[in-house]
Amino acid sequence: MTHSSVKTQTLEEHRQQFPALQNKLYFNYGGQGPLSQPALDAIQSAYIEVQEIGPFTGASNKWITQQVEGARDAIATELNVASSTITLTDSVSTGCNIALWGINWKAGDHLLLSDCEHPSVIATAQQLQRRFGIEFSTCPILETLNAGDPIAAVLEHLRPQTKMLAISHILWNTGQVLPLQSLIQACRQQKPEILILVDAAQSVGVLPLSLAELDVDCYAFTGHKWWCGPDGLGGLYVSPNALEKLEPTYMGWRGVTVSSSGYPTGWQPDGRRFEIATSAYPLFVGLTAALKHQQQWGTAQDRYQRILQLSQKLWQQMRQIPGIHCLRSAPPESGLVSFQCAEHRKLVQDLEHHQMMVRLIADPQCVRACVHYLTLDSEIDQLTAQISQIMSTR
Amino acid sequence: MTHSSVKTQTLEEHRQQFPALQNKLYFNYGGQGPLSQPALDAIQSAYIEVQEIGPFTGASNKWITQQVEGARDAIATELNVASSTITLTDSVSTGCNIALWGINWKAGDHLLLSDCEHPSVIATAQQLQRRFGIEFSTCPILETLNAGDPIAAVLEHLRPQTKMLAISHILWNTGQVLPLQSLIQACRQQKPEILILVDAAQSVGVLPLSLAELDVDCYAFTGHKWWCGPDGLGGLYVSPNALEKLEPTYMGWRGVTVSSSGYPTGWQPDGRRFEIATSAYPLFVGLTAALKHQQQWGTAQDRYQRILQLSQKLWQQMRQIPGIHCLRSAPPESGLVSFQCAEHRKLVQDLEHHQMMVRLIADPQCVRACVHYLTLDSEIDQLTAQISQIMSTR
Repeated sequence: MTHSSVKTQTLEEHRQQFPALQNKLYFNYGGQGPLSQPALDAIQSAYIEVQEIGPFTGASNKWITQQVEGARDAIATELNVASSTITLTDSVSTGCNIALWGINWKAGDHLLLSDCEHPSVIATAQQLQRRFGIEFSTCPILETLNAGDPIAAVLEHLRPQTKMLAISHILWNTGQVLPLQSLIQACRQQKPEILILVDAAQSVGVLPLSLAELDVDCYAFTGHKWWCGPDGLGGLYVSPNALEKLEPTYMGWRGVTVSSSGYPTGWQPDGRRFEIATSAYPLFVGLTAALKHQQQWGTAQDRYQRILQLSQKLWQQMRQIPGIHCLRSAPPESGLVSFQCAEHRKLVQDLEHHQMMVRLIADPQCVRACVHYLTLDSEIDQLTAQISQIMSTR
Repeated sequence: MTHSSVKTQTLEEHRQQFPALQNKLYFNYGGQGPLSQPALDAIQSAYIEVQEIGPFTGASNKWITQQVEGARDAIATELNVASSTITLTDSVSTGCNIALWGINWKAGDHLLLSDCEHPSVIATAQQLQRRFGIEFSTCPILETLNAGDPIAAVLEHLRPQTKMLAISHILWNTGQVLPLQSLIQACRQQKPEILILVDAAQSVGVLPLSLAELDVDCYAFTGHKWWCGPDGLGGLYVSPNALEKLEPTYMGWRGVTVSSSGYPTGWQPDGRRFEIATSAYPLFVGLTAALKHQQQWGTAQDRYQRILQLSQKLWQQMRQIPGIHCLRSAPPESGLVSFQCAEHRKLVQDLEHHQMMVRLIADPQCVRACVHYLTLDSEIDQLTAQISQIMSTR
């Protein structure tokens, strides 16, 4: 029995524990990951436990703190950083807002984005422009998908007034993986004071990560996509250096220290300073359980290797289908496979009608299919067979 | 059979559906309300439903939108306002932050708070001071608990530069209910342009409310206290007039309109403009179920009348206990009964040891016991008997 077949066998059992994967072919992990039964059970148990010992008592407040810090520790372990660097948020977008609003912007300051950032980040940039009179612009990364140098594209668009670069680690539309460590190093050489915010929506839970080595300032992520945690819980890594430079914006009791009379006396010394107030605490238990369950199948490296095998397979099969154009001309480096054809929206709807779930991307107009380590080879075969059939009847 | 005994009988059955109330005497509704079994079941069913039809598919995205808008409608109905005026948030504090950061503050602008505001609001005021050079100060409301005029206390502290008043409807420490409609009217007479933010953490779910009549600008609340919904879901009412004056701060895809290529083109026309991104959607189903369940027992007016009966009873009994000083010299107008004695923290701990849950308040130093319409007369009798016994052995 080879190592590979051991994994495949274990995967079948492992997959049985994801209810969402039992009645459909799922290729939207980049939108939201499925919850495993252990994660669902943990959430349900947490709701019952809080009612049993609380909801608001000395005992329940202690229990809640333990669960919140347990989730923070589990996240930090995955990212290979200290727990104190992690701020818990409700979404990637909130993490990006904390970083983007954390600078004391002055009129004329410049914010650089890539041209492949999520609308949430663009909306925040627009609002910073309105409020503070900053300028923002984009650098052309989309065109470097198959040729060209994304690092050069960024460097050429840094300005003397650039205070921050906001860029994704894995582009949500094309699946391109940016060479983040080299990119950050090059930016710092040209502009030592620049702050770098990374939208990690598509990289956390896909790439094996060691954030301290990347030398990134802020890394915003969510638990509910590739980590297969519950929606409504994400986080933001802020490096010790960036923590000194950023200010909190939205504030609440979780972010401050208080005097004996309860008066706020300062910020928490760590990532908690950006947290606000009461959250849905059972989610923290759910994410911790989800991470533990993933690790039972394999290491981050194991999972990424399997994603690469599967996305290469999907990409190769898609390239064979007449009428389909894969955006990438080389095998994917992530779990995202984006492609173009006639009538994208109709294809997505037709596939959902056959219980095969992919999504539409608006810019560039395309369809995105995601494979996780949970994906089966047979699912890829069925998806591409169905797409072939749809294309042949058009 | 009197009307009152009918209610009491129904209440016993109704109460059976709150697991948290079965093994303790609960007086911390102002901290967090218990979840009813229908609300717990609704949350659990929502988690299962999302896995069944999603988590990320055309069908699940449609279902999620329905649940979010259903919760918005249920909230708006309780507050007697249009759904379009409601922003969904994760907490009261987030709602307050949206309003407080929504003004384009200039150095020298003034923000007036009462001296009984929650540390979360003070923390935000401190940060606005750091960021924009505004001034903030407090007006003395605490001393008007038993005598004096809170309206005069506010009016005397308005300044020519005052842009916003942030004040609670029911003070979280003393339980005082402010005469909000008159207070707002008086403020507007003196300063027509002022924006008024109300922290409604302790009033929503207690007072029968019709926000449009109050003429309030912003009213921030949570579902997880007196409404007995899940933690992590609250909201903010913004009047049509205030909507024109406030800008969004944290932004995300939920708050914007987009072009056909997904590019943000403007804000949503209504309260959604202040919402950010992915939330824990099962909570929306839970809050809707919680509100429906409360209404099955009685109207907002019924529930408030019962709260008043019970808090008067608790206050009367507490006043008889040697060594206990109730902060109020007249019967409470809310469900909060705050009192002082020697060694507050020890009393709270001793009571929790006897499965009786009250909480410590830091300023003024006191103990707070809350009664809801769910509270039993017998619970009040047991609590005050236990406190009497503790006090007599000191």
